[in-house]
Amino acid sequence: MASSWTPLHAKIHRTLRSRSLLPKHESILIALSGGQDSLCLAQLLIDLRDRWNWHLAIAHCDHRWRADSQANADHIATLAQSWNLPFYLKTADSPPPNEASAREWRYAQLQSIEGFHTIVTGHTASDRAETLLFNLIRGSGADGLSSLNWTRQLTPTVKLVRPLLEIMRSQTAEFCRDRNLPIWQDSTNNDLAYARNRIRQELLPSLKHNFNAQVESHLAQTMELLSAEVEYLETVASEFYETAIDITSQSLDRTILRKIPLAIQRRVIRQFLMRSLNFNPNFEQVEKCVGLITAPNRSRTDPFIEKTIAEVNADQIQLKSLD
Amino acid sequence: MASSWTPLHAKIHRTLRSRSLLPKHESILIALSGGQDSLCLAQLLIDLRDRWNWHLAIAHCDHRWRADSQANADHIATLAQSWNLPFYLKTADSPPPNEASAREWRYAQLQSIEGFHTIVTGHTASDRAETLLFNLIRGSGADGLSSLNWTRQLTPTVKLVRPLLEIMRSQTAEFCRDRNLPIWQDSTNNDLAYARNRIRQELLPSLKHNFNAQVESHLAQTMELLSAEVEYLETVASEFYETAIDITSQSLDRTILRKIPLAIQRRVIRQFLMRSLNFNPNFEQVEKCVGLITAPNRSRTDPFIEKTIAEVNADQIQLKSLD
Repeated sequence: MASSWTPLHAKIHRTLRSRSLLPKHESILIALSGGQDSLCLAQLLIDLRDRWNWHLAIAHCDHRWRADSQANADHIATLAQSWNLPFYLKTADSPPPNEASAREWRYAQLQSIEGFHTIVTGHTASDRAETLLFNLIRGSGADGLSSLNWTRQLTPTVKLVRPLLEIMRSQTAEFCRDRNLPIWQDSTNNDLAYARNRIRQELLPSLKHNFNAQVESHLAQTMELLSAEVEYLETVASEFYETAIDITSQSLDRTILRKIPLAIQRRVIRQFLMRSLNFNPNFEQVEKCVGLITAPNRSRTDPFIEKTIAEVNADQIQLKSLD
Repeated sequence: MASSWTPLHAKIHRTLRSRSLLPKHESILIALSGGQDSLCLAQLLIDLRDRWNWHLAIAHCDHRWRADSQANADHIATLAQSWNLPFYLKTADSPPPNEASAREWRYAQLQSIEGFHTIVTGHTASDRAETLLFNLIRGSGADGLSSLNWTRQLTPTVKLVRPLLEIMRSQTAEFCRDRNLPIWQDSTNNDLAYARNRIRQELLPSLKHNFNAQVESHLAQTMELLSAEVEYLETVASEFYETAIDITSQSLDRTILRKIPLAIQRRVIRQFLMRSLNFNPNFEQVEKCVGLITAPNRSRTDPFIEKTIAEVNADQIQLKSLD
C-alpha cells in the first residue's frame, strides 16, 4: 500500500530541511517506546526515507518497570519486522530507581549501539509545553524553561535529534489513528501521583478551558524562543567566565564582572559555582554571590555546601572553606 | 506612636540601597489606590523617611469605574491628611473604556503633577507571578514574561519605581493588619470574569496546593531573571538592528543577520517589523521572516498587514507593498 502524503509529512519535511536536522544518507536510530509519538515519528521517517536516502533502524529500551514491559518489547519487535527494519532491544538488568536514572541508562544503551551517529526521539510540542510548566512550577529559571531542544550532542560523535517539536500530541494521535498504527498504552501515563501526568491531564486541559484554547502551542513557542536565548546567553557568559576565572585560586575577577550586564553576571556566577563546587545553586545563592561584585572587601555569602563560602578578597570573589 | 522596625522594613531598606532605587533627598510621589499593597508601601516609606530624607506625597487617580470611587478618593484624602502628607487627586472626566487606556490615563495624570521625578507603585512579587502566568498563557514570548521591572522611565525626567517586587501579597496583608491600616476593598478584584482575578484566586492557589507551595515566589524569581535577560538581549539586538537597517529602502542587510545567533536574529527581525510597520508580530510571522535570512532570492512572507510583505532582494530583506 502506498503511503499517502499528508500535511504532517509536508510539515516534517520542511522542518527537517530548514533546520538541517537529519542529513541525507544518514544512518538513523529511532528510539521507539511504542507510544503514539514515537510510532508517529517512525512512520513519518519511513514515509520520507526515499527522499532523503536514510538508513533507518529501531531501538527499544526496556526498563522493566512494568509487568507488561516484555510484551511491549515483543510488540515493537514485531512492528520493526513488519517495517522490515533492523531492531535493537536493550533490557535493564534491574529496573532503574527513578526517571532520571532511567533516562541516563537509556541514553547510554542507545549510544552503545554501533553504526549510528544520530538517535531520534518522538518528543512533541506538547512535551515542551508540559516541561515548561513543570520546570516553571519547580522554579528552575530560564534554563529549565528551555530544556527540550531540537538537537543535543550526547557524545562527541552521537547526536540526539527531536524532529517532532512543532507537532502537537493531538496530531500524533490523529496520525496513528488514520494509519492504524498499533499504539502500546503505557498504564503509568495515567498515574496522577506523577506531577507530569497531572500537568498533562489536569492542568493543561484546565488552562485551555478556562483561559486560552491555544495555550499548549503558546507554551511550546515560548520554549522555542527561550531555548535559543538561553543558548546565546550561556555562550556569552562562558566567554566572560573564561576571562574572569582563576582556576588555581578558585576566584573570579570583580573588575571584569563589574563591566558586564546583570543578566550575564548572574550566569557567570552560576557557572562559577556549578563548575567549582559541582552543585546547582538556587536563586538566592546566586543573588547573594552577585551582590559580592560590588560589595566591600571581606564581604561573604552564607555557606553554599559543606562550609564553603564565597568571599571578597580585594578584586577577587574567592571560594573558601571555613574549616 | 513610634513605628516599630520590622523585618519587612529591613528588607525594603536593603533592597532600596542595593538596587539604588530611591536616592536620598528625593521627592517621591506615592500612587495610592487604597488597596493593601499601596497602603503598605506608603507606610513603609513614611517609616523609612528619616533615614533617607525623602519628601513624600500621595496621589490618587479616580477612574470613576465604580459607584464607590468618590468615597474611595475621600478615604485616601483623609488618610493623607492623617499622615500629614500633600495629596493630589486626579479624577477622570469619563471612565476609561478598558484597563490599558486606564493605565495610560493614570500615568499621564501622575506625570503631570509637578515637582516629582519619581513615582512609586505598590506592585509586589505576587503581581509578578500573576503577570508571568497571564502573559505565558496569552503567549507573549519572553518579553511578556519579564514585563514588571524595578524601574521604568515614563518620560525623560520622570521614573516609575516599584520597591515591593520582592514582597509577597501575603506580607503586605500581614503588615496592614499589624498596623491597622484601613484597606479599601476593591469589589472588582473578586470578579472572576477577569482572567487576572481567576489567576489570583483560582490558578495560583491550585498550583500551590497541587504542585508546589513555593510556586508564587518561584514565578516571581523567574520574572526577575528573565527581566534582566530580556533587557540585555534587546540591547544587543538594537545594536545589530542599527547596523543592519537601511531606513530609506526599509530593508535589513542579510549578510549582517547571517552572522548573528538565532536568538538575536529573531529580536532584530521583531524590532524591524515593529518599528517599520508599527505592529506587534506574532511567533509565526517572526519565524517566517527569520527564514528569509537564508532563503533564495525573491522568497517572501505572507502579508503582515494591509498587503505588506517582506521579500528577499539579493542581500536585503525588504518590506514591500503588494499594491
